[in-house]
Amino acid sequence: MEDVLRYIESHQEKFLAELQELLRIPSISADPAHREDVLRCSRFLADHLRGIGLSVEVFQTPGNPILFASTPMIPAAPTVLFYGHYDVQPVDPLDLWQSPPFAADIRNGNIYARGASDDKGPVFAHMKGVEAFLRTRGTLPLNFRFFIEGEEEVGSAHLDPFIAAHRELLRADVVVISDTTQFAPGVPAVTYGLRGLAYLEVSLQGPSHDLHSGSFGGTVPNPAGILVDVLSRFKDERGAIRIPGFYDKVLPIASWEREMYDSLPFHAEEYRALTGVRKLRTEEGFTPLECRWARPTLDINGLYGGYAGPGAKTIIPARAGAKVSMRLVPDQDPEEIAALFTRYVLSLCPQDVSVEIKNLHGGKPVLMDVNSPWMKAARTAISKGFGKAPVLTREGGSIPVVATFKEVLQLDSLMLGFGRPDDGAHSPNEKLCLDDFYRGILTSAHLIDELGRTTAES
Amino acid sequence: MEDVLRYIESHQEKFLAELQELLRIPSISADPAHREDVLRCSRFLADHLRGIGLSVEVFQTPGNPILFASTPMIPAAPTVLFYGHYDVQPVDPLDLWQSPPFAADIRNGNIYARGASDDKGPVFAHMKGVEAFLRTRGTLPLNFRFFIEGEEEVGSAHLDPFIAAHRELLRADVVVISDTTQFAPGVPAVTYGLRGLAYLEVSLQGPSHDLHSGSFGGTVPNPAGILVDVLSRFKDERGAIRIPGFYDKVLPIASWEREMYDSLPFHAEEYRALTGVRKLRTEEGFTPLECRWARPTLDINGLYGGYAGPGAKTIIPARAGAKVSMRLVPDQDPEEIAALFTRYVLSLCPQDVSVEIKNLHGGKPVLMDVNSPWMKAARTAISKGFGKAPVLTREGGSIPVVATFKEVLQLDSLMLGFGRPDDGAHSPNEKLCLDDFYRGILTSAHLIDELGRTTAES
Repeated sequence: MEDVLRYIESHQEKFLAELQELLRIPSISADPAHREDVLRCSRFLADHLRGIGLSVEVFQTPGNPILFASTPMIPAAPTVLFYGHYDVQPVDPLDLWQSPPFAADIRNGNIYARGASDDKGPVFAHMKGVEAFLRTRGTLPLNFRFFIEGEEEVGSAHLDPFIAAHRELLRADVVVISDTTQFAPGVPAVTYGLRGLAYLEVSLQGPSHDLHSGSFGGTVPNPAGILVDVLSRFKDERGAIRIPGFYDKVLPIASWEREMYDSLPFHAEEYRALTGVRKLRTEEGFTPLECRWARPTLDINGLYGGYAGPGAKTIIPARAGAKVSMRLVPDQDPEEIAALFTRYVLSLCPQDVSVEIKNLHGGKPVLMDVNSPWMKAARTAISKGFGKAPVLTREGGSIPVVATFKEVLQLDSLMLGFGRPDDGAHSPNEKLCLDDFYRGILTSAHLIDELGRTTAES
Repeated sequence: MEDVLRYIESHQEKFLAELQELLRIPSISADPAHREDVLRCSRFLADHLRGIGLSVEVFQTPGNPILFASTPMIPAAPTVLFYGHYDVQPVDPLDLWQSPPFAADIRNGNIYARGASDDKGPVFAHMKGVEAFLRTRGTLPLNFRFFIEGEEEVGSAHLDPFIAAHRELLRADVVVISDTTQFAPGVPAVTYGLRGLAYLEVSLQGPSHDLHSGSFGGTVPNPAGILVDVLSRFKDERGAIRIPGFYDKVLPIASWEREMYDSLPFHAEEYRALTGVRKLRTEEGFTPLECRWARPTLDINGLYGGYAGPGAKTIIPARAGAKVSMRLVPDQDPEEIAALFTRYVLSLCPQDVSVEIKNLHGGKPVLMDVNSPWMKAARTAISKGFGKAPVLTREGGSIPVVATFKEVLQLDSLMLGFGRPDDGAHSPNEKLCLDDFYRGILTSAHLIDELGRTTAES
C-alpha cells in the first residue's frame, strides 16, 4: 500500500483545490432556480471521473441526472457499489453565514461550504482513493462503482425506480456510503443503523380570503388557531407521541446496544452547547443517545399562516399550515405511519375548516448485521485511515436508499463517517475539517485494499 | 341647500376623476419602501385642500406628516373636527387582486383600489361636501377642520402625542369620522361603539441555529412545538379566552342593545358567504352581531418558524413566533390586557426556551351617548344623504383615536359609515361603490347644514 499512500500524501494540495472547485457549484436541488447549477455539478463530476480513468454513464431522469462510473473490470474480484449524492441543502438563513455558502473559504483547518460535509467532501474523498490506486498501479483489487445521485436532499424521488430498473447494472457484493459522521471529533464510526422518516404537510383553510380581525373577529373559525390546537395534540406532557398505533412496531433497544451506547464518550454538556439549547429535552426513560438513534420522534419543521412581516397586520388568515416530520425506527413503516398521522389529524380537525394533508417524503429505518465480513473490513479500513478503531453507532438521520439497497438488491451498506457531528449539515456555516478529508481519502484506499481480500464467507 | 346639492350633482365626474388620482398613490405606511409615496399622498391632499379654499398646515412628525386644514373662520358657529387617514394597508397577497391595487379600475359601479373604502374614499367625500359649500356660497355655516393623519394602519404612534400637544388647535364641539361602514348595502349606520385592541408578538428560541432533525431530533426542545402548545392554551373548548382576569372588566350588553341588534337585517348565511367559511363560529350564548361588536376576541394573526418553502426541509427550527391580537370591549384596557397576556404566556412557557414578547399595538374600546344633539344631527344628515334613516350600530374594529378625542379633548365622535362591510378593507380587491361615494358627499353637505344649526343643548 505504500505506493498508494505516498500518492495521497503528495497530492493533498491538488485534492483540496479540486474539492474547492466542486464546492463552488451551488447544486441546491430544492430550488428550481438552481437547476442549471445542479446539472453543471453532475457534468463536473462526470468529467472528473473520466479524467481519473473510469468509464462514466450519465442517466437522465425526470429529475436530476444519476451518475454511474466503473473502474476497469477485474473478473472474479468483489464488486463495491459506492453511493453518494452531489446535491446540497438550501442555504437560508443566508445572513447567518460567515462566508458565502459557495465560496469554499478555508479557515482554521476547515473548508466552509454548503455540501462540504454533506455529501460532496466524503464523495470526493472516495474518488481520490480510487484515483490513488489507478495512478500508481493502473488497477484496483476489486470492481469499484460510483453511483451518485442529485436528489437526496429532496427525497430521491427517482432513485428507487432507477434501482428497480437497473438491478443488473447495480449488481455488487456490498454498498459503501459516507453520508454519516464520526461519533465525535477524532472518534471515527461505522454506522449500523439509521432512522427512517415520514414527512407531511398539513394545511387548513377557514375563510376564503384574509379577513379584517376587527370586523369579523368573534364569528369565524381561525385556521391558525385551529392548527395550533391540532398540533398541540401530537405529544403528551411527557413528550410521548399520541398518534394511535405510533409505537406498535417500535423494536426495543437490545441490551448490548444500551451497554455499548453507555460506553461511548458522549458528553451531554458539550452536546447541549453544540445545539445552543438551554437544556436537553429527552423522552422519559431513555438516554440522549438512545433518543437520537433508536427512538422515534415527531417535530414541527415549519409553521406558516397569516402575516409574518414587520409590525402589526390585523387579519384573520385564510390559511395556516405546518410541516411535520417523524423520525422512525425499526420496524416502523413510513407509509403506515403517514396513514396513522393522517387519520389522527383528520379526527382532530373540526368540520368548519377544510384540511389538506400532503405526504412529502418518506424513508424506511435500517439495522445492519454488525458481524458480517464486510463490516470487519470496513472497521479495519477506518482503523488504518484514522489511526484509531471505529466505534459502532447508529445515526438519527435518514438514508432511505440504504433500505432500498437491502430490499431490492439484497445488499448491506457499510456506512463510514468521515465528517463530524458539528459540521453543520443543513445549517449555516457547514464545514469539513481538512484532516477528516485527508483521513477519508486514506480510509477509502485502505477499504479498497481490505475489501479486495474479502468474500461473503471470509 | 339646493345650490349646494346642484353643485354636487353636476360635478360627479370631476369628483370621481380626482378620487382616482388620489387612489393611485400607493401610500402604504407599513412598508418603508413606500415612504415617498406616503409623503406624496400628504402633499396631494394638502394641495387639494388649498385649491378648495382652506388654509392648510402640514405638521411633520417623527413618522408621517399630519394635515390640518380650516375653512374660513365663522365666529360663534360650531366647530367640527373631521378626522381621517390617508395611509393604507399593505396589499399582499398581491396575486389575489383582479386589477392592480393602485390602478383604481372602475368595474360594475365600483372603484377598486387599496384605500378606496378605508379610508381615502370617505375622507375625499367630506372634502367634496366642503367644496360644494365653498364653491356655491363662499362660506359654511360652521367651522370645519380636517385633521388627517398618515399612520392609522400602523398604530398612529405619533397621533396621541400630537393631540396632547395641540389642544388649542384642535378645540371643537364635536368630531366627525367616516372610517366605519354601513350596516349592510343600502342600510346606512351611525356607529356608537368600537372595540379596542391589544396586539402582541410572541417569539420563542430553542436551539441557537436550525438543527438537522435527524441528527438532533429527540433530544432538544423544538420552539415551534412549544409555541403551538402555548397558543393552544388561549381558549377553552367552548371558545372562551383562558387568560386569567381577561373578562373582569367586560361590560354586559344592555338589554336595549340586544333588542336593537336582533331587529337589524342581519342574514347569517349571507354573512357566512361573505367570509367564505364553512360555518360561523361564535361564543356560546351570544349572537353573531353581539360577538362582532360587544364581545372581546383573541385571534392568531400570523404564525412563523422554520421552513415554509416548497417541499421538505428536515430541520428543527431555532425560532418560532406568532402575532396574536385581542379585540377589546368597554371597559377593558389594552395595557392591562397586554400585561395579563404577557404574564399568562410566561407562565405557560417552559424553562428550556427563551421567550420574547413585544406589545406592538393597542387602542381603547369606546361607547358614545346615542342621545346627544350631535348624534341627532348625524342621523338626519345620513337620512337625507342616503334617503334612508340610519341604524345604530357598533363596529368590531378599532379607531383608537376616538378614545383619545374623548379623554384628551372631551369630544364625542360621530361615526358615519359610507362604505360597505363587503368592501374588502384589509383584503385583496378592496373597493368602494360609486353610489356610496356620491351619497357620502351629499351626507357630508347635509351634515354641515345640520350641525350648523346644532348646539350642545339643542
